[in-house]
Amino acid sequence: MTKILILGGGGMVGQKLAHHLAANGWQGQPADVILHDVGFAPDGAPAEQRFIGSLTDAGAASQLAGLRPDVIFHLAAIVSGEAEQDFEKGWQVNMFATWHLLEALRAEHDASGGSYVPRLVFSSSIAVFGAPFPDKIGDEFLTAPLTSYGAQKAICELMVSDFSRKGFVDGLSIRLPTICVRPGKPNKAASGFFSGIIREPLNGVDAVLPVPDTVRHWHASPRSAVGFLERAGTMDLDLLEGRRSLNMPGLSCTVAEQIEALRSEAGAEAVARIRPAPDPAIAAIVAGWPRDFDARRATALGFAAESSFAEIIQVYIQDDLGRS
Amino acid sequence: MTKILILGGGGMVGQKLAHHLAANGWQGQPADVILHDVGFAPDGAPAEQRFIGSLTDAGAASQLAGLRPDVIFHLAAIVSGEAEQDFEKGWQVNMFATWHLLEALRAEHDASGGSYVPRLVFSSSIAVFGAPFPDKIGDEFLTAPLTSYGAQKAICELMVSDFSRKGFVDGLSIRLPTICVRPGKPNKAASGFFSGIIREPLNGVDAVLPVPDTVRHWHASPRSAVGFLERAGTMDLDLLEGRRSLNMPGLSCTVAEQIEALRSEAGAEAVARIRPAPDPAIAAIVAGWPRDFDARRATALGFAAESSFAEIIQVYIQDDLGRS
Repeated sequence: MTKILILGGGGMVGQKLAHHLAANGWQGQPADVILHDVGFAPDGAPAEQRFIGSLTDAGAASQLAGLRPDVIFHLAAIVSGEAEQDFEKGWQVNMFATWHLLEALRAEHDASGGSYVPRLVFSSSIAVFGAPFPDKIGDEFLTAPLTSYGAQKAICELMVSDFSRKGFVDGLSIRLPTICVRPGKPNKAASGFFSGIIREPLNGVDAVLPVPDTVRHWHASPRSAVGFLERAGTMDLDLLEGRRSLNMPGLSCTVAEQIEALRSEAGAEAVARIRPAPDPAIAAIVAGWPRDFDARRATALGFAAESSFAEIIQVYIQDDLGRS
Repeated sequence: MTKILILGGGGMVGQKLAHHLAANGWQGQPADVILHDVGFAPDGAPAEQRFIGSLTDAGAASQLAGLRPDVIFHLAAIVSGEAEQDFEKGWQVNMFATWHLLEALRAEHDASGGSYVPRLVFSSSIAVFGAPFPDKIGDEFLTAPLTSYGAQKAICELMVSDFSRKGFVDGLSIRLPTICVRPGKPNKAASGFFSGIIREPLNGVDAVLPVPDTVRHWHASPRSAVGFLERAGTMDLDLLEGRRSLNMPGLSCTVAEQIEALRSEAGAEAVARIRPAPDPAIAAIVAGWPRDFDARRATALGFAAESSFAEIIQVYIQDDLGRS
């Protein structure tokens, strides 16, 4: 049975993935799923084992690597806003924990005589890019991050690539779009409003919009994110020809287009719940973010996302509100 | 008096820089020069202070940061061949030592109440790039290194940028071309023959050429390297607009063009000392290296290199053989 470890398994995407694995298994077979996170909601996804702790705890990486998972999804991180506020914590959690994980996996590789080479899927982010941008960011554009979070993600990508090139792990990094519509409560990410202006109205709650509706951004649904992870966990990585960081596909649209999609899916009364409340601090952060991509490599490799924002709203309504 | 710390001050470029500072000072004034390295040649460049040790030694970074240098040139590294052979040593010396240096400088910044913000010039390398390449690598091309050395350099660049963005240091990374003609003995770098085929014949010694003469590469002289460092140490970094990694200018030429320049500078008998001795291992490494750049950002910012390989040979003859 394929042993699958999800780091950050208590988070939104980790839980979506765990639910998906419980329902669908892995490549048509049941999977042995292990979750690690600082905590889990009581009504969370099922798993064979759950570990509670920080990846920065002494010995945590060695303990988890010692389980010799076949596939590791590394989704654990503190978000951009928190990494910007707490410089030390950001580097410890977002960079050093990944380093210790890679070193622990290399030790298992060596202890196995070289036979243990786990698939490692690292969830990176479009935050590795920083303005100024071309109209569409291509697959060969430089990583010049403008946040500590982005720098930490870009560094982990380089580590994953080099440990993979050396044959210690078989890894890749997938740069996720902003995941929208996030279910549940807002987190500390500055991108939270992209979900909030859809989620809150659909739940009969008022929402604030801190930026002009001309802001353009790059989105994919949680369902697409799970699809990206599954594809990254199963594909033949020789196809990457040594370039192991991939921009995921997504949907580029403006906030105005998001709002029009909400109107078409849920009517004018939903839209009326969005209240503009300009926040220059958030607007300044968002101005440095990518707006659009030409993700042709990932698309050619079989990764797929939504093609309209209405579709993204429908995914939320189906998967999180349980309606159709 | 400006206090200048050179890490890797015993190496070839560090010594060239120290000699230059002893002869010319810093911005027209005498400078207080401090050198750090694992060792120094007995006939080395003069300096106010010399520290012998590894940057990976416990407390080394704190001790050096505690001197509160105004300008730090970080040239210390193990070379590409050694980092590829000794994975652990490569990461410790080429990545962790830089991390500890940055953290030690941040501690001094904090202890000074924020007034201490040293200029930090990090010597990076074109090894941050990996094939496939466009004909000329532009300023927005991705860093996809194919060696551990290149990965470590690219990671340090990201750290220098983020610590600078936060205001703890005022740093930049300059990506040096292959420095040619290196004086003295060959080092462990796979690029050594680019210098060897010029240096050995000019000193009446036979040289081997391990690659076809159609190989194209990117060069600058040690004198240009010192010029790059001086410019990087004095320029207004606001001009970088947040993109703190710069491809240095250089000269692109084939090995055949190098040999023709040697013929024009030193005659047919010098050329006759070059013996082809194909080495598939070296040829494979070199095939993954950059061949040409469009370094327009650095050029616009006042960085300059040679415009012909004959000029590079003349620099060696003048600066290292003491002829003109």
